[in-house]
Amino acid sequence: MKKSLGAKSLLYPTPVFVVGTYDRDGKPNVMTASWGGLCCSTPPCVAVALRKATYSYGNIMDKKAFTINIPSVDSVKQADYFGLVSGKDTDKFAATGLTPVKSDIVDAPYVNEFPLNLECSVLHVVEVGLHIQFIGEIKDIKADASILDEQGHLNIERVKPFLFAPGDRTYYGVGELLRKAFSIGKEIKGE
Amino acid sequence: MKKSLGAKSLLYPTPVFVVGTYDRDGKPNVMTASWGGLCCSTPPCVAVALRKATYSYGNIMDKKAFTINIPSVDSVKQADYFGLVSGKDTDKFAATGLTPVKSDIVDAPYVNEFPLNLECSVLHVVEVGLHIQFIGEIKDIKADASILDEQGHLNIERVKPFLFAPGDRTYYGVGELLRKAFSIGKEIKGE
Repeated sequence: MKKSLGAKSLLYPTPVFVVGTYDRDGKPNVMTASWGGLCCSTPPCVAVALRKATYSYGNIMDKKAFTINIPSVDSVKQADYFGLVSGKDTDKFAATGLTPVKSDIVDAPYVNEFPLNLECSVLHVVEVGLHIQFIGEIKDIKADASILDEQGHLNIERVKPFLFAPGDRTYYGVGELLRKAFSIGKEIKGE
Repeated sequence: MKKSLGAKSLLYPTPVFVVGTYDRDGKPNVMTASWGGLCCSTPPCVAVALRKATYSYGNIMDKKAFTINIPSVDSVKQADYFGLVSGKDTDKFAATGLTPVKSDIVDAPYVNEFPLNLECSVLHVVEVGLHIQFIGEIKDIKADASILDEQGHLNIERVKPFLFAPGDRTYYGVGELLRKAFSIGKEIKGE
């Protein structure tokens, strides 16, 4: 039996993005966001939605650039902290000891200690409601050499990302490998 | 050391959305998509990006409505199948034996056997590139009574969703509970 939950922003899983930006004085900032995801293959694009009240919103509007940094499970505490305080009055890099690195491609910093860093330039700004959605074209991805296999490919088990469960307001790790995509479904035959 | 991977649509985790639509003849269709995520709290909105070539794209443009259905790990095979074939020439519900239920709120069907169903009306259509992003306002969420706790709240461990790892092209389950969000970060003190 189905029950109606009403109109809510709720689904599983949502990612944990740490958004990197510079302010007008060139001070690097980071904030955590889970409202977002990939939105295009060609050109490769990622979307992330922020409230106008955030410091990062003004930074992105000003610089037209941001990074999306994927923290590993070792950095849950830092990622959570980045969502608790504002860059208006806090130097979040100084507080955590993490290292901002200036992107060589866009006007935004990435978090050196996080294994995967997407460098994005703003392609679209969509006023959805309380949240404004930034669609960023992914100009390059930087990855820790340690998470690449011998062929230079990424593997999620080396990245060790985590996810946010909105209703539960809880972080979860990635579980076991289930099946290969574009493969297991072939066992079903159409009519 | 960081290595450059180039411009790619790659990040972790991405969700597994099964998008439900009706075609002009009222035939229900479903397709699997992982380029999407929540994008606003007020009004609650979800974004999903599809190629124009998909049957679902035309259906959504026509009906201005869709559902996002979250499959559990028990339905990996069906969800994968929904991404392998086109509704142009296949009745995917008939092929899998799953049940389309007409939403009482929007002009789209949801998958009865999947635990979580978001009923959406189209708010924005963003031409990003190869993919077109549909931003849907979530008008209601239907949930299986079995995944709600005594207070009527959802829990990700009852939903048992899974995720897609783009580079690996593999499905993974949700792992262990790590920490409560908006909490563990308080152990870090700003300067």
